[in-house]
Amino acid sequence: MTEDIKKEEVKEEKATETTEEVVEEAKEATETTEEVVEETKETSELEEAQARAEEFENKYLRVHAEMQNIQRRAKEERQQLQKYRSQDLAKAILPALDNIERALAVEGLTDDVKKGLEMIQESLINALKEEGIEEIAADGEFNHNFHMAIQTMPADDEHPADTIAQVFQKGYKLHDRILRPAMVVVYKEN
Amino acid sequence: MTEDIKKEEVKEEKATETTEEVVEEAKEATETTEEVVEETKETSELEEAQARAEEFENKYLRVHAEMQNIQRRAKEERQQLQKYRSQDLAKAILPALDNIERALAVEGLTDDVKKGLEMIQESLINALKEEGIEEIAADGEFNHNFHMAIQTMPADDEHPADTIAQVFQKGYKLHDRILRPAMVVVYKEN
Repeated sequence: MTEDIKKEEVKEEKATETTEEVVEEAKEATETTEEVVEETKETSELEEAQARAEEFENKYLRVHAEMQNIQRRAKEERQQLQKYRSQDLAKAILPALDNIERALAVEGLTDDVKKGLEMIQESLINALKEEGIEEIAADGEFNHNFHMAIQTMPADDEHPADTIAQVFQKGYKLHDRILRPAMVVVYKEN
Repeated sequence: MTEDIKKEEVKEEKATETTEEVVEEAKEATETTEEVVEETKETSELEEAQARAEEFENKYLRVHAEMQNIQRRAKEERQQLQKYRSQDLAKAILPALDNIERALAVEGLTDDVKKGLEMIQESLINALKEEGIEEIAADGEFNHNFHMAIQTMPADDEHPADTIAQVFQKGYKLHDRILRPAMVVVYKEN
């Protein structure tokens, strides 16, 4: 009996050992799986962080470029506004200048009145010149970019075709912009 | 002799085994180190990527906010430029307006000349008005924000102190900005 018991004990012990081994193996397998999961998790976390870094780098670069564009455009716009700022007031002033010229053309003005009118005219012209507004030249060839023909006269030997015969109303430009063309009479071939 | 040789061989075998074991152990130790290094490397790569993501997110947010500021400021600047664009030309025109007034004050003008001058004056005033430029009122209380006292007169029962006695030169403003104050004579307490 004691022999049997002993045998049984040994058997049990062996079985226990086997079970323990199995458990141990299973445990090891689990650990390996966990390690793999851990590694995969780490990799996807890394990938995610890298993708996020790239996304924000791109966003940053885009918005940075956009900002530079906005700054450039704003500067150009400001320069344009500055350059042509006097356009509307200058245009509105031209009729006063026309009136002065017409008044000066009237015969029988006293010298004082004439002098007074010329002073007013000069100060207006100077004010306009300071802002880049000047009279358009109209004493040679006709150019449809600067002159408007409102009447024609027959050309002859002394007056070649397409030259200006007379200025009806002066034209003015602001830098490169025409505020209004000069109204002229042009010689034309018969 | 053969016995000796055999013994020697056994010895050598054992030594070799021992060496191999040591090498194997060393290898294992190296592998463990490498694993640790690998893990550390992965962690630092992740940390690096996360730091980079955060850095670019912050850069992006900063530049985005900066861009909005620039847009806002550019708009405000544009509006200011637009609003006060006629300031310089208007200022330069005022002396012409003064000259017209002085001419109109001369006695003995013919009706035609007077009418002509008034026409010029009116068209200048209208041009200025269209751009927001107007005469400063100077017919009541003296206000140092709008008027400049160039002379005083003694106040009396009919003329209270700090009221305007006379306008020497008209003042003008552009919207809320003073182009030049009105030059006036003011009644003062004796």
